[in-house]
Order: sequence, then structure tokens, then C-alpha cells
Amino acid sequence: MSQAQVSDDEIFGGHEGGKLSVTTTRPITQARDLSIAYTPGVAKVSRAIAEDAALAKRYTWADRLVAVVSDGTAVLGLGDIGPSASLPVMEGKSVLFKTFAGLDSIPLVLDTTDVDEIVETLVRLRPSFGAVNLEDVSAPRCFELEDKLKAALDCPVMHDDQHGTAIVVLAALRGANMVLDRAIADQRVVISGAGAAGVACTRILQAAGVGDVTVLDSKGIVHAGRGGLNPIKEQLAETTNAAGLRGGLAEALEGADVFIGLSSSTIDESLLATMAGDSVVFALSNPDPEVHPDVAAKYASVVATGRSDFPNQINNVLAFPGVFKGALDSGARSITENMKLAAADAIASVAADKLAADHIVPSPLDPRVAAEVAAAVAKAAESDGVTV
Amino acid sequence: MSQAQVSDDEIFGGHEGGKLSVTTTRPITQARDLSIAYTPGVAKVSRAIAEDAALAKRYTWADRLVAVVSDGTAVLGLGDIGPSASLPVMEGKSVLFKTFAGLDSIPLVLDTTDVDEIVETLVRLRPSFGAVNLEDVSAPRCFELEDKLKAALDCPVMHDDQHGTAIVVLAALRGANMVLDRAIADQRVVISGAGAAGVACTRILQAAGVGDVTVLDSKGIVHAGRGGLNPIKEQLAETTNAAGLRGGLAEALEGADVFIGLSSSTIDESLLATMAGDSVVFALSNPDPEVHPDVAAKYASVVATGRSDFPNQINNVLAFPGVFKGALDSGARSITENMKLAAADAIASVAADKLAADHIVPSPLDPRVAAEVAAAVAKAAESDGVTV
Repeated sequence: MSQAQVSDDEIFGGHEGGKLSVTTTRPITQARDLSIAYTPGVAKVSRAIAEDAALAKRYTWADRLVAVVSDGTAVLGLGDIGPSASLPVMEGKSVLFKTFAGLDSIPLVLDTTDVDEIVETLVRLRPSFGAVNLEDVSAPRCFELEDKLKAALDCPVMHDDQHGTAIVVLAALRGANMVLDRAIADQRVVISGAGAAGVACTRILQAAGVGDVTVLDSKGIVHAGRGGLNPIKEQLAETTNAAGLRGGLAEALEGADVFIGLSSSTIDESLLATMAGDSVVFALSNPDPEVHPDVAAKYASVVATGRSDFPNQINNVLAFPGVFKGALDSGARSITENMKLAAADAIASVAADKLAADHIVPSPLDPRVAAEVAAAVAKAAESDGVTV
Repeated sequence: MSQAQVSDDEIFGGHEGGKLSVTTTRPITQARDLSIAYTPGVAKVSRAIAEDAALAKRYTWADRLVAVVSDGTAVLGLGDIGPSASLPVMEGKSVLFKTFAGLDSIPLVLDTTDVDEIVETLVRLRPSFGAVNLEDVSAPRCFELEDKLKAALDCPVMHDDQHGTAIVVLAALRGANMVLDRAIADQRVVISGAGAAGVACTRILQAAGVGDVTVLDSKGIVHAGRGGLNPIKEQLAETTNAAGLRGGLAEALEGADVFIGLSSSTIDESLLATMAGDSVVFALSNPDPEVHPDVAAKYASVVATGRSDFPNQINNVLAFPGVFKGALDSGARSITENMKLAAADAIASVAADKLAADHIVPSPLDPRVAAEVAAAVAKAAESDGVTV
């Protein structure tokens, strides 16, 4: 799976002038084309929409357009680098939406970090798009922002750093469980990191039936007795850590079945030795995993990272293109928990055809994934009754 | 020049699914492409921009991206039909930007008509785009909105209904004057309509040296003695109507050299008979000109309309693609009066090679126009010192 190192020249050359272009769906080559796409023809279309607002769905691009929105406060591993510096990532997201799901999207990077101002801005822009992919917004603001956006907008809204990651982690855990032939309910899972991804992974694993999740932040195991927790961590403390553990990674990992690293920290291999037999290690920090996968493999039966140069790449691109395509295809007005669970199952089902310890998730380039995810998500939207 | 009628089926079929698509400038076909356009490669580009903000110009699309912005309050001849119904027009605008100037643009239609909220929204979105084409905003709000946006944003901002129209009207008048071999300074011009286009035409003609302009609104000739004028019309009253005329079209047109209709009204041919010899009639209301061009031709030496099915189509598309291209090519931070005058001259110069009474402006499909306009605008930006 390894590939030759990509040079800086290639990277910067691949960004020259940006990575996106807006093109026309029908060429303008004669006066007749102008009369259709612009005056006088377009007036008939505008008048029709003014008389029946539902026609905007059919005769404009907005209904299927994804706004990729960021304030640049938590960009990859780089942190709060601001909206302009986040733009290459958002353009990349749009590239992936187009490549894997055929969806049009536009990056909107915002020069404000105020949650209410971001919500207000998107409410004002609502007629311009059909869904919102929130990206690279810092925790815990991202939780409040997503909640408020979902309440304010009658369209699919998803913070990908939370739910895209959570969906793919669940899919990968399902894949690992198939390889190891065991049930999700019986496992003790340790999640290192209580940011956007850690919180969402905890929630989706619980929704999928994992009974025992222990979460750690930079101060150690999150538990109610610790004090000084923000509201999100208070909620985590109430719903996780069934065994009432105290301490740090050493205390959490002893006898655990699954380790999920989402914290940009490192983990000593001696701790992995204390996990239960046939353990699973997802070392997902980028670009440096919490532990090198070759080291983790000395102790764990299944190992995954976020990197493309090792097996089992857990990458959001397996989820978000299909999730939004399914939501838009079905006319969903929101993205429900069942839609996310269905997406994870669909990803796992694509991996299932050549399942192995080093193939618990499909390749990010597998063209079947987005289509399968979209179909599953659309079906879940319909059974949840959130479609128009 | 006439063309077969465009059917409703063709028009609506030409809008199915919208008229725009966002594409990628480099295809993603292998893992290596993903590593460049997205993680981990993109992180280097984001970090570079975080360290040197000027690099956003080079490595993102924003610096050359035009936001086509409307609140849907004055759409074509349809009036205040709202943002969703205005979207087909804005998509059409983006189609023309791409077709004629190769510029990427995105329609942003806003669910607010509050001038300060629109300004605030675009200020927050500033890192996402490189220029603003304001479109179809009602008068007199459009004047205040454009002024405030120009003050708030360090990038080119132009309300096309004002200045695009004004530039092409001036170009057409220069063409007519070349045909009739006379000077612009000597003429008495009557403008029917004191909305966005009427006000901007008045200003550009005055800037070009026309000494005597008379403007009419729905109540007749705008003059200081009338009372109840809004601030924009007060300013018009102060700078126009040198002869101190009172009354309506009859009083204004008697002995006038040029009539410019921008008011969606009609004009009786008997009034055209009272104009000076070798008169010029621009009947620009769409889709119904103030007077049928065949009727106007009985009295005037040069006739123009806004329609594609008659000679001398005065259409904004001759101006805005090249104006924005020239501004962005030169790194202009604003669009000055000289840049607009230069654009008009460039359009007139393209028409000059086969000048005739029925060819005072180039065809909207003439591919030379945007390039010539862009070059002239860029040069004017540089001599005005507004480039970075």
C-alpha cells in the first residue's frame, strides 16, 4: 500500500489557482443559447418560481448544492489558522464531493468565529444552497454550532469532523468484528480524545450498541467526580465509563478490547500489551498516528490508521459524499442517527467481500462506496420520515 | 438578425437541474491525487497560507472568484420576486462570466433585504471570494448598498444594473456619434427612468462630457422645484436639466438629440417626431421596448433596443465579464469611474471595424469584446493606482 513520497512541488503545483472551477451545464455558442440561459428566456423560469416556490428545486442548482462551511478554527492538525488558510481544505472537500458523489459544492469560509453570527449568515444565505457540510470548527463550539444550525435550517446539516469520522470508525469496528467474529455489544472501548470526533464516535458506538465506552481527554479519564467539566464532557461522564474508572490511559486500557485514538497524542506500546486478547487499535491521529501500526500489530489483531500509506485507512471520504448524496437524493430535511448508522453499515458491507485483518474498510477510491452509502442513507431517511 | 421563437419547453428544459456545475481542476484517479488535493498534502498549503496570507491569492480560487449577489428585489422586469426566484438569473450571470471571460463565479442569493445585513453578510464571507457583482437590487436601496459595500470590502464591487448598463449605453452612444460624425459634448440627452440604470447612465454620460442631460421618473422631469425627491433624485436635480425644463416627456423631448428609455414605460411616436434631426433612440426596456424599433426608425437615424432579435442590442453582457476580468487581472481593489469609461471606449472600438447605423455595438457573442474590455479596464486600474 505504500506510495512514493509526494513532493512539495507536486503539492503546491496541484493547488496553483485553486482546485475548483464553475462550469456551465449547457454551452453558450449562439444567440439562441443566450436567449434561453439569460434574457429574455430566464424571466419565464424566474416568474414560474415566484408563483410556485417548489419549482426552485427543479430549475436551479441550489437544492442539490452543498455549502462547505468553515471558520478555520480547527483545521486538520493545524488548529486555529483562520478562514483563508482553511480554504484549500474546503476546496479539497468540494473536489471529493464531486469526485465520489457527483455533487456540486461551494466552500464558504467565514471571517467570524461567533456561533450565532455563523448561524445568522447561513440563514440569510439559505436560498443559495441545499445542505451544509460544517468543517474544521473547534470544539466545544462545534457542538453548539451544529445544534443551532440544525434548528435554524430546514436542510441536511452535518459537522463532518464529528459524524463523518464516527460513521467510518463504526464501519471499521464492524469490519474488525466480522474478522474476529465477535459482537459489538460485548466490547469495552477506550476513546482517547474528547473533541469533535471523540464525542461523536462515543455517541455512534453507543447508538450501535456498545455498552462500555471510556473516554479520555488531556486530563485523563472523563468521569463525573473530576469536576470542571464543560457541558459536553458532563454528558459524556454521565453516559460512559460504566466501570467507574479513574486515572489515565494505563487504567483505561487494561483489559480493553478496542482503542480509538483521536487526540494527536502518543501511546506507549507497553500499554497496548495490557489490553485484552485479540485487541483492536485504531490510531487515527494525522499525520502521526498515536502508535506506529507496525508496533501496534505486535499486540493487536486488527490495526487501522488515518493514513493512506498503511492498510485500513479510516478516512471520512468513505462517508460524507454518500451521506450527503443520500440525504439530497431522498429530499431529507435533516440527517438522523439512523441515517448515520445506515451509512456505517453500508461501508462495512462493501468491505465484506474481501474481508481480512488488513481490509476492514474499503479503499477511499472504491467507487462502490458512495453509491452504497447514498442508497442506505436515502432508505433510512425515508423510514425515519424526514423526507419532504 | 431575427431568430425563430424559443419555446417554453426549450427554456425550461435548459434550466432543468440548474445551469452551473462545480468541477475539479485536476482529476482524482489514484491515492496519490488524494494525498495532494486532500490529506496529508493540503495541510502544507494551509500552513503556508497561515504563515503568509498573500499566498491565498495563489493557492486558492477565492482571489479570482466573483460572488453574484442578489436579494431578488428588482429582478429583470419582474420586480420583487425574492431570492429563490432570482436564482436562475444569477446562475445565468455566472454562465456568462464563464463563457465570455473565463471567470468562476457563484450565485449568492440572500433572504434579507436589509442593506446593513447584506453588507455584514458579505463582510463575513470576504475570505471566500475576490469580487462582488451586485444584481437586481431595487432602487434607491441599491445606491446605498453599493456605496456601503465598496467602503466595507477591499475588492472590486459593481452593481451591474447600474454600471454595466451605463457602460454599454455610453459605448452605444459613442458608436452612434461615430456614425453620425458628431461630438458627445454638444448633445441634449433625455433619460426616461431614474432607477438604478437611469441614475448610473446619467452619471457616466456626464463623466464622458455630455453637458445637457434631462432625467424623467414616473412623475415627469426631475427638477429641484418639484419637492419630495429622495436624496438620489435631489442630486440628479442639482446636476441635470440645465435648461430648467418642467413637465413630462413632451417637454423634455422637443429638440432633444438622444432618447434613452430605461423605465418599462411606452412612448408615443408623435413625441419622437419633435426631436432634433438625426436623433438617436435607445428603447431599452425588456422585453417590451418603449417604442417598437421599426416605428422609432421612422424618426430617428440610429435606433437600439435591449433585444437580441433587433439590430444594436444594448446588453450588459458586453461589459460585465470584461470589467471584472480586467479588475481581477490587474489586482484592482475597486472599480473606478475611469475603468468604466475605459470599458465603454473598448466596446465602441470593437464595433468600429464595421460601424453602421445598425451596428453601433458589437454582438454580445463577439469573443473579442471581453478581452478588449479587460485589457482597457486593467490599464485604467493601473493608471488610477488602485491595484495592489
